[in-house]
Amino acid sequence: VVGLVERTTKDRRDEQRERLVDCAERLIGTQGLQAVRARELAKQMGCAVGAIYNLVGDLDELVLLVAQRTQRDLSTYLDATAGAMVGDIGAEILLVAWAETYLRFARENRLRWRALFEFRLPAGIALPGWFEQDQETIFARLEDRLLPLTRDQTVAARKLKARMLFAAVHGIVALSLEEKIVAMPVDAVAGELAAFVRAYLRGLTSV
Amino acid sequence: VVGLVERTTKDRRDEQRERLVDCAERLIGTQGLQAVRARELAKQMGCAVGAIYNLVGDLDELVLLVAQRTQRDLSTYLDATAGAMVGDIGAEILLVAWAETYLRFARENRLRWRALFEFRLPAGIALPGWFEQDQETIFARLEDRLLPLTRDQTVAARKLKARMLFAAVHGIVALSLEEKIVAMPVDAVAGELAAFVRAYLRGLTSV
Repeated sequence: VVGLVERTTKDRRDEQRERLVDCAERLIGTQGLQAVRARELAKQMGCAVGAIYNLVGDLDELVLLVAQRTQRDLSTYLDATAGAMVGDIGAEILLVAWAETYLRFARENRLRWRALFEFRLPAGIALPGWFEQDQETIFARLEDRLLPLTRDQTVAARKLKARMLFAAVHGIVALSLEEKIVAMPVDAVAGELAAFVRAYLRGLTSV
Repeated sequence: VVGLVERTTKDRRDEQRERLVDCAERLIGTQGLQAVRARELAKQMGCAVGAIYNLVGDLDELVLLVAQRTQRDLSTYLDATAGAMVGDIGAEILLVAWAETYLRFARENRLRWRALFEFRLPAGIALPGWFEQDQETIFARLEDRLLPLTRDQTVAARKLKARMLFAAVHGIVALSLEEKIVAMPVDAVAGELAAFVRAYLRGLTSV
């Protein structure tokens, strides 16, 4: 009986925690990262501010839990793109399609996507392992597809290339989507993104 | 005599305005963009808060004046890199060296560089012409060097390619330098940046 009660309490806590992450996700998705405040969360949850900290260690952990969902949604987009392709497609075609999928993901999930890159952990605090593992699975896709295009011998070299290609595409998407002071028109970029990635990949194999 | 007095007043105002930009530049360079506040500026200038707004229209204009200086400093770095190269060097060598210069500039001027991309104008507000013109001159360098490597017929297509290459390098530099949740080790990136740009440029000419 004690075991049962304990399980029920744990289940209820997990459920509350999910509701809290839902809440934070909605705030980020509609108002942005800076809207995640303990007082606002408590109001929406109908609980005391202190109760928030029984569910998560701090607001940084909560933001990372939302970021984890955003990353998983991005994975879903990438998988859907790969799944929609018929037959044995080459690495170049898929990588180019993924770059365009990334732009679409950022456009369709603007504020949640932006939060992934606006968020900064306090100095000296490392990412939790569960979060990094999720990121690894996203990059692993890229690594697998880049592999036949490179002559890199080491896993570290392939990992770095995959992350740099991601960062390059991200930079193009970010500077074109965000109204920053270094601006590029997003529609023009959308039409040219495939050519950019293709040029890089061809250069990779030709060097 | 009236003309003389007027000129002196204008000179004094210009001088005060320069001091104000110095002040904001120091705040951004040591504490970041969010440190630029009217009250703090007034304190450092030894004037009333209202007097700040006699010198600049608003704090956004002030931040853009600092950003203009940051952009000009970046131009100085790029020119120094080009100037240090002897003889008739090819476009590839210079573009690769510029990418590495950009990484160095970001590392050496971290907070001022970051402010260029953190700053966002209010929705619907366009960049002032004088600021955009300065940006044009930076990108014009890239366009000139990319030109022999592309078969683009139109100026618009070349401009877009130059900005996308900049954005790609910026994305790599930003995700590696900033402690963001998508991270890449900066020293590894520094060693691989040249290869990335080279691959892209070779792909450009081979397509």
